[in-house]
Amino acid sequence: MAKNLTSRSENYSQWYNELVIKADLAENSAVRGCMVIKPYGFSIWEKMQAALDKMFKDTGHSNAYFPIFIPKSFFSKEASHVEGFAKECAVVTHYRLKNDENGKGIVVDEDAKLEEELIIRPTSETIIWDTYKNWVQSYRDLPLLINQWANVVRWEMRTRLFLRTAEFLWQEGHTAHETKKEAVAETEQMLNIYADFAENFMALPVLKGTKSPNERFAGAIETYCIEALMQDGKALQVGTSHFLGQNFAKAFDVKFLSRENKLEYVWATSWGVSTRLIGALIMAHSDDNGLVLPPKMAPIQVVIVPISKNSDQLNSITEKAISIKKALEDKGISVKYDDRDTYKPGWKFAEYEFKGVPVRLVIGPRDLENDTVEISRRDTLEKESYKMIDIANKIEHLLEQIQNNLFQKALSFREDNTYKIDNWESFKEQVEKGGFIYAHWDGTSETELKIKDETKATIRTIPIDGNYEEGKCIYTGNPSKQRVIFAKAY
Amino acid sequence: MAKNLTSRSENYSQWYNELVIKADLAENSAVRGCMVIKPYGFSIWEKMQAALDKMFKDTGHSNAYFPIFIPKSFFSKEASHVEGFAKECAVVTHYRLKNDENGKGIVVDEDAKLEEELIIRPTSETIIWDTYKNWVQSYRDLPLLINQWANVVRWEMRTRLFLRTAEFLWQEGHTAHETKKEAVAETEQMLNIYADFAENFMALPVLKGTKSPNERFAGAIETYCIEALMQDGKALQVGTSHFLGQNFAKAFDVKFLSRENKLEYVWATSWGVSTRLIGALIMAHSDDNGLVLPPKMAPIQVVIVPISKNSDQLNSITEKAISIKKALEDKGISVKYDDRDTYKPGWKFAEYEFKGVPVRLVIGPRDLENDTVEISRRDTLEKESYKMIDIANKIEHLLEQIQNNLFQKALSFREDNTYKIDNWESFKEQVEKGGFIYAHWDGTSETELKIKDETKATIRTIPIDGNYEEGKCIYTGNPSKQRVIFAKAY
Repeated sequence: MAKNLTSRSENYSQWYNELVIKADLAENSAVRGCMVIKPYGFSIWEKMQAALDKMFKDTGHSNAYFPIFIPKSFFSKEASHVEGFAKECAVVTHYRLKNDENGKGIVVDEDAKLEEELIIRPTSETIIWDTYKNWVQSYRDLPLLINQWANVVRWEMRTRLFLRTAEFLWQEGHTAHETKKEAVAETEQMLNIYADFAENFMALPVLKGTKSPNERFAGAIETYCIEALMQDGKALQVGTSHFLGQNFAKAFDVKFLSRENKLEYVWATSWGVSTRLIGALIMAHSDDNGLVLPPKMAPIQVVIVPISKNSDQLNSITEKAISIKKALEDKGISVKYDDRDTYKPGWKFAEYEFKGVPVRLVIGPRDLENDTVEISRRDTLEKESYKMIDIANKIEHLLEQIQNNLFQKALSFREDNTYKIDNWESFKEQVEKGGFIYAHWDGTSETELKIKDETKATIRTIPIDGNYEEGKCIYTGNPSKQRVIFAKAY
Repeated sequence: MAKNLTSRSENYSQWYNELVIKADLAENSAVRGCMVIKPYGFSIWEKMQAALDKMFKDTGHSNAYFPIFIPKSFFSKEASHVEGFAKECAVVTHYRLKNDENGKGIVVDEDAKLEEELIIRPTSETIIWDTYKNWVQSYRDLPLLINQWANVVRWEMRTRLFLRTAEFLWQEGHTAHETKKEAVAETEQMLNIYADFAENFMALPVLKGTKSPNERFAGAIETYCIEALMQDGKALQVGTSHFLGQNFAKAFDVKFLSRENKLEYVWATSWGVSTRLIGALIMAHSDDNGLVLPPKMAPIQVVIVPISKNSDQLNSITEKAISIKKALEDKGISVKYDDRDTYKPGWKFAEYEFKGVPVRLVIGPRDLENDTVEISRRDTLEKESYKMIDIANKIEHLLEQIQNNLFQKALSFREDNTYKIDNWESFKEQVEKGGFIYAHWDGTSETELKIKDETKATIRTIPIDGNYEEGKCIYTGNPSKQRVIFAKAY
């Protein structure tokens, strides 16, 4: 390989780290734990944002923006919330620098100390519910269906590009409802939107379910999640949707006059996905030759590379390439024609393969003679010489095939790595090897934590697929109402 | 007026503040100086972002994301830069909270003090140039044409919604070039894009020029700007584009191997516009009845309101409304059909007028009989009953007319409030009254500051329109090479 990428079998973790850097997706910044998202990586995020934003708006949500700062006192109002986030907060204490009087350069001006410290939002429930207090008087003001695209900060000690960084980008939806039923329906709707997005845009099959109390969002009554399996057999939480009950309404005193003319607390949800999705996308599909991107998430879907021996040839090829490019763009396909003379064709092939461009077209002198084009697909690395008939439909169809193939491949992988296990020894062995394990659990936090201690496996999710087979807990033998899904996770 | 809006003549400043709040654009948050941008205000920002982002991409720029934190030491590397921003920096000093041992609740954990304080970016030149250092080796790596949409923090003491807030949203472009000539051309190109956007999307006529050294961006060799005149005769800086020379390349040691095989410092530009644009939009066009939005910036371009006495009528009206809505949407026009029965038509008329929706259509029983629709335009408040022929083209054309009318109105206002003045007493008088004043200036900072002290007028811009009439400084009588533009400003 051109870029000397460590193979997955050799060292999966290193493969991932190298790939992110070498494919120009992101890099570590000079600030501990914070990443720089490079243009190529960011353009994947833009595709994710566009698709999700449309889905949110189609279901009646609007975007808004709330302050990045949260007064420390707000933070403490919801007890379990502060418990969950206090240990990883960036705290602003001063608002001015000055020249040091002893010539030591620029220092913090101690005269500019804030009366109350400000926390940089790790999530915005508290500042948003403090704001909603003034927006909600009657049932007519409900529901509030609001989303925010923003940066958040959680001071993680061990960080990895996209998967866990001190600052990351995300969207956070925060909705307010008249009834519990409506709020639960919203929570489930957003989970379904996330699952739809993961499967149909990212080509990533996901399991839907709820979290055990241990793994719930700090302040939630119920956390729903989608979970995907990565190629190393570890699970990745892709998105979460929380039913918050009336916890935040009570903490921030958000009441409304109901249809029955009674003062009631508002019901809440929140839901989010982050730049972690990019990590999931990379880990789910890519291979030892570099990135593999599903067409719907690829910044460049088709690249056209000319091979010519002289400028006359190049002119003819360019003419043909431009006409293909136009025909594809008319179908909404993004195309790059790379006719740079500073790089050789072979270099370009390696480059676009590494960057995961789904389809490559090559036009050489013989293609001019025969009215053909060489079509290569990134997912299977197959090549064919194609007679130039109806090229735009051909490519459109091929992109759909690639999208579907990647989903099917990931789905087969998951199915091949999913196990029903009823025996503790087999369980421990399988956790070591990886995959999703359906096993019985007695429903107690105590057992969950013991299993985690002994195996590092956590309950990824409690399925909501209606499959409620009873059995005995894999660890204690106590009665269990349904199987839950265990795995080691990112 | 339904919403009791203070009139502009009564108190312009209060009119603005009330309008922002009552039109649901933004409000002050619980955090000093920070605003909440409400859904309606944010949807205007989204329209601005979409138009600008396309213009940036059409000229070869890509988006990326850099950390919100800047190590204090980076900040000090470019001397005039730190000088310009040190006094308004939010400083992060700790990364953890904890439960107070004496039961005083949540407190900052003093054990979690950062070795080096982090500044929340007031602008990102320093962290970005520290990153570019590793991205640029040879001329082949240039130009770097990168933009970032982000939040920034400048701890302003006196804030106003949209116009000056401690946290605001903006885009900041940061480009790196081989030659001075290329960098200057980029600076000018981006200024022209801003002017194009202001005039053709915001319907806001702007003057283009450079800033005097006093008003330059901290770290720039030359700052270009666009300036607009608000209805109270005060100027508003709408956008800036900076030629940074090699200042940041030298501060962060960013060199490249040139085509001549020599190590040279890179040439830089940066440029930005912010949510302040929303303030400009409001102040330029709105009136005593509320917001007036140019169609290209209006989240809802057309609202349809039914008037019916019974549900049969409402059904027929709805049918007609939906068919109009569809015809308009096919042309890319955004339409809201408001058939809520919880509000009366009169309330809706007042509401959409206040919110600045450019066109209102009303369909009543008589319109059903006569196959007509009542069309009202927000800019002139004119109404007409229109026979339903080719309604979509009619409305499309009307929206263009409104867009042009708002631009012409703002342009006439500016022309009526622009003065050439050569006499100091008249100058002082006119500054009091407002408007743009073309006057001669001797080119010294000393004179500029004295004029500011005596009149509060600043040099808004030094025109680059090629009109270089010589004369004598309005204040000192010393020779001047061209007139510059003075005004009191926001």
